[in-house]
Amino acid sequence: MAATLDIVFSPSGRRGTVPVGTNVLDAARMLGVDIDSVCGGRAICGRCQVSVAGRGPGPSASPPGPSETTDYRPRRALAAGCRLACQVEALTDLMVDVPPSSQVHRQVVRKRAEVVDIEVDPVVRLYYVEVSEPDMHRQSSDSLRLLEALAEQWDPKYAELVIEPELLPHLQPVLRQGKWAVTVAVHDDQAVTGIWPGFRDLMLGAAFDVGSTTVAGHLLDLASGEVIASSGMMNPQIRFGEDLMSRVSYSMMNPAGADEMTAAIRSAVGSLLEQLAEEAGVATSDILELTFVGNPIMHHLLLGIDPRELGTAPFALAVDAAVRIPARVLGLDAHPGARVYVLPCIAGHVGADAAAAALSETPHRGSEIQLLVDVGTNAEIMLGSKDRLLAASSPTGPAFEGAQISSGQRAAPGAVERVRVDRDTLEPRFKVIGSDLWSDEAGFDESVSAFGVTGICGSGIIEAVAELYLAGLVGPDGGITGANRTPRISPDGRTFSYTLLDGDPPIQITQADVRAIQLAKAALYAGVRLLMDHLDVQAVDEIRLAGAFGSHIDPTYAMALGMIPDCDLTRVHAAGNAAGSGAIIALLSGRARRDVEQLVREVEKIETAVEPRFQDHFVGAMGIPHSDHQFPHLASVLDLPTASADPPETRRRRNRRRA
Amino acid sequence: MAATLDIVFSPSGRRGTVPVGTNVLDAARMLGVDIDSVCGGRAICGRCQVSVAGRGPGPSASPPGPSETTDYRPRRALAAGCRLACQVEALTDLMVDVPPSSQVHRQVVRKRAEVVDIEVDPVVRLYYVEVSEPDMHRQSSDSLRLLEALAEQWDPKYAELVIEPELLPHLQPVLRQGKWAVTVAVHDDQAVTGIWPGFRDLMLGAAFDVGSTTVAGHLLDLASGEVIASSGMMNPQIRFGEDLMSRVSYSMMNPAGADEMTAAIRSAVGSLLEQLAEEAGVATSDILELTFVGNPIMHHLLLGIDPRELGTAPFALAVDAAVRIPARVLGLDAHPGARVYVLPCIAGHVGADAAAAALSETPHRGSEIQLLVDVGTNAEIMLGSKDRLLAASSPTGPAFEGAQISSGQRAAPGAVERVRVDRDTLEPRFKVIGSDLWSDEAGFDESVSAFGVTGICGSGIIEAVAELYLAGLVGPDGGITGANRTPRISPDGRTFSYTLLDGDPPIQITQADVRAIQLAKAALYAGVRLLMDHLDVQAVDEIRLAGAFGSHIDPTYAMALGMIPDCDLTRVHAAGNAAGSGAIIALLSGRARRDVEQLVREVEKIETAVEPRFQDHFVGAMGIPHSDHQFPHLASVLDLPTASADPPETRRRRNRRRA
Repeated sequence: MAATLDIVFSPSGRRGTVPVGTNVLDAARMLGVDIDSVCGGRAICGRCQVSVAGRGPGPSASPPGPSETTDYRPRRALAAGCRLACQVEALTDLMVDVPPSSQVHRQVVRKRAEVVDIEVDPVVRLYYVEVSEPDMHRQSSDSLRLLEALAEQWDPKYAELVIEPELLPHLQPVLRQGKWAVTVAVHDDQAVTGIWPGFRDLMLGAAFDVGSTTVAGHLLDLASGEVIASSGMMNPQIRFGEDLMSRVSYSMMNPAGADEMTAAIRSAVGSLLEQLAEEAGVATSDILELTFVGNPIMHHLLLGIDPRELGTAPFALAVDAAVRIPARVLGLDAHPGARVYVLPCIAGHVGADAAAAALSETPHRGSEIQLLVDVGTNAEIMLGSKDRLLAASSPTGPAFEGAQISSGQRAAPGAVERVRVDRDTLEPRFKVIGSDLWSDEAGFDESVSAFGVTGICGSGIIEAVAELYLAGLVGPDGGITGANRTPRISPDGRTFSYTLLDGDPPIQITQADVRAIQLAKAALYAGVRLLMDHLDVQAVDEIRLAGAFGSHIDPTYAMALGMIPDCDLTRVHAAGNAAGSGAIIALLSGRARRDVEQLVREVEKIETAVEPRFQDHFVGAMGIPHSDHQFPHLASVLDLPTASADPPETRRRRNRRRA
Repeated sequence: MAATLDIVFSPSGRRGTVPVGTNVLDAARMLGVDIDSVCGGRAICGRCQVSVAGRGPGPSASPPGPSETTDYRPRRALAAGCRLACQVEALTDLMVDVPPSSQVHRQVVRKRAEVVDIEVDPVVRLYYVEVSEPDMHRQSSDSLRLLEALAEQWDPKYAELVIEPELLPHLQPVLRQGKWAVTVAVHDDQAVTGIWPGFRDLMLGAAFDVGSTTVAGHLLDLASGEVIASSGMMNPQIRFGEDLMSRVSYSMMNPAGADEMTAAIRSAVGSLLEQLAEEAGVATSDILELTFVGNPIMHHLLLGIDPRELGTAPFALAVDAAVRIPARVLGLDAHPGARVYVLPCIAGHVGADAAAAALSETPHRGSEIQLLVDVGTNAEIMLGSKDRLLAASSPTGPAFEGAQISSGQRAAPGAVERVRVDRDTLEPRFKVIGSDLWSDEAGFDESVSAFGVTGICGSGIIEAVAELYLAGLVGPDGGITGANRTPRISPDGRTFSYTLLDGDPPIQITQADVRAIQLAKAALYAGVRLLMDHLDVQAVDEIRLAGAFGSHIDPTYAMALGMIPDCDLTRVHAAGNAAGSGAIIALLSGRARRDVEQLVREVEKIETAVEPRFQDHFVGAMGIPHSDHQFPHLASVLDLPTASADPPETRRRRNRRRA
């Protein structure tokens, strides 16, 4: 009987007894330990780096041979103290530490501490194989020998892989060019979708968030999970209509309207792909996998589906399940075998973008009640925990985006984004996008001279209305009053306006502006309340505000205005582009795809339009801040320091100390 | 407890006890009885016709209601004595006979009695479903409700079907056009590939045999299995080279050569599709399924694979397994969801055509030894039984096709196809394609006046050489002799020729022609002998001669010349276009596809080029008829009646009586 030894792997803790002289990578595989490898133990890829320590006397492992010292082609350098697991033979009892970078299911650390790390385990993988040459004495096709090699050198089940028919013309020349050593891409353990001569370790993916206004794309290294380029562009569909509903109308009015819009968005995604590749200095043909998220109308138009049904009740989606489709069918110029994964939609107004945001913010994972809100023309709202998750959309209208506001504009340089109104003098100060200075600080005028002060954006109007309320110039019913207190309040027909900046044209907050914000915030709040009713909770533990608006808005003012329910302010966070993050997560992890598909199946869809309580909540939420609910945390918010110049973070900390 | 009754189905013999009042179609499904239905029990499709007989007193079944008498839209009439199973309720013990036309796995009777009938069970099926309308109170997509309907109304596993992404844009308009009743095509129990409003029962398929010279296509009704149109055209690749090897050379000499030839054949198949549809009065968009067979080079060019590797040793196929590919990828204008199935190849010189011929002629099914030969530039040879099957190809060259023969030509009007030489006078008679008369019969000249006598085709040269041998003008070594016996033998350089027709130019059999035939027949015979050696048999029980040449050749002469091994002549048959039949079988039956895939995996491939014995057999087979083997049946063949005018069939019967 051969001598044996004990081998222990960390961090998994897996251990076992193997014959002396066993290769460490082989031992890992026998024991089910997760060590990465593309080259299959040939000292080429450098993915299987481990650190090795003996637990007995004498040499614990074979010394580094030429394969590690001179032959190893270090695409990645051999880290200090590391060995290639595939080149080490165990000689005595051994401890083997597998660093995260050598694990197949490694994690990418995300910046925000409160969200879980992303698992990097993409559905496409590269395998280096050495294929036996054709032999007249044993007739078999190049395809068959390729699959046999994959089965022998990687996984027996790969004998059953399908080779993409479109790949067949490339098989023979590439095998011969690579002298019978090739790297293949295997998609989802089902199909061979790419082949390259020799060893290859480059595998890229792209994640897209198709918004009504902008399209954002990220290019990632699928092996490391790193973002190597990011870019965005305007959605060219804007020429068919500014907002979603006008695009639906365009498709209803024009027989080829939907096709035109489909062609426009696909071409834009194509340009963005090229832009990303150029930025990263790679070829689009290196891109093997793509993911897409978008609201239901963008989702349908991307897939060539006329969105007209989404424009009228009952708002039926053509498809809600995830869609898997070859990139070439969408006319995208990536690798010929590249696949597209379009994340699932939740409901007629709750799209793949909301599903992706949930994948990123994980309301379905925690035991506390999380509220996840993405505000646009419709607010997409998800509420719940691992026990139960609800989703709805609420028709907030475009006011939060600065539309339908007298001095409103998109968030762009020159737009007022922060507002303070002195409680005593009732004079305003503000900040505009593009400048770090407040309007009453020295040098402000110079700092904005390139673009001027051109209007007020969504977060600006929120703060303006909230500050006017806190200063007593807007009443709990939303009426503008106080003409006798400050000349900034001036008559405007039968109502009043507050002049923020007396330019030409002036920037004013009109009564109609306050009403628009009241309607929008009431719709948002009513949607949230409706879900709270369904979930039978009186408070939420945590709030995540997703999207551009959610990133710019100051949660303090959102709560002061009664947009969101009462919550500990330290637990209200901007989630950034959560939809885009979800697209990236689905790009990097097959398990995440199964996760979001299950989430979408299990989430309870609430249609606000058919719920009588929605109207009740809506009416109740018109007041400022609210008239139907208790707000333990709101009290401190309403006790805001007067026109503080502190950034919100400082103020938030102060509030916490008081609490 | 409810009253029950006994119900028995024939011909399956399945029986069971069901509650009184049970619907007969439901009872059949419960008991696993095979009854067809497209409409799912709605008295629309008429597929479930059965005859019903009571086994007790009183009324045995519910009387025909309006659904059967007035409402039933008889796409097929209700047969005499038949009821729609879906409309009958069982009242007493019942006998239900399910005629073949109402069985899902029905059979198409083939013309030749010796081959098995074809099972009609295509991989694509139509299902009529009633889909629930969208409802704002219960949000779900049209896709989801369609799959739910398929699962509820047809098969629970259909909840997991994938809807082809390319079909998604059509889903919503078709569901609404059909008022939520649609017919869908389900491919291979995996994907929804088509959708039509309302009820639909038309489902077509096309089977193609892509030959080097001609392309043949058949259009079939996939429900009945009937051929509704057949057509053929020249393979336009001929402009790149007459034979296979010249086309391989073309691809080697021209960088885009293979692509040109791929485009040519795909365009020809497209034209043929249109031609077939026009002939049958249908639209190409009704075609849901296509199958293709061809030799390895045609197979590769159809799939866009450069065939150059097939031109030089070791003759490696790019792919041998069956290829499944959307028709649109091949640029074919069928239904957008149409799928193509390309039958598997066996080896570098034994293609999908040979596999298809085996599927049709079933050498792998019987217990006797069958020899299946398809003669072209290469002879594809299969030999064996259900116990063991071998395949090889033999380089016969083009002589059997009339090429490399001094007066040779393709089989076309004006070509000599039958030859007799009077044993005494040594004068010839012959028949030409396009005329039913022998050349010495009255009216022959008029009957051929439209095209004249232009040359000699493959079967004609076989008979000519064999008759010259039987008349003693060609010796066992193949030398032409007898210049002193008849003026038809004339010097031709240092050898002699026999003049068949003294026209301008004359039609002669030269010494070089005899040598070409000797080489070709020796190659064929040596290939067969090699397989007989491998199988360790001294004789074959049955011979099938496939292809055009096999249909035209008289087996008597083939044996007299020593092309084929000794065999009872009553068991030598032309198999017609066996490859085309195989394409049809694979079109009609999913089980046949699995059958041919297994056959191709299990057949033993013998490469003649690396077998030393092949050369030995080849040399030994150069003589006429043979010099290395005993021929119990050949004796009677060589005792042929002199220059008989009997058709081969009469003569064969006579031989049988003698035996």
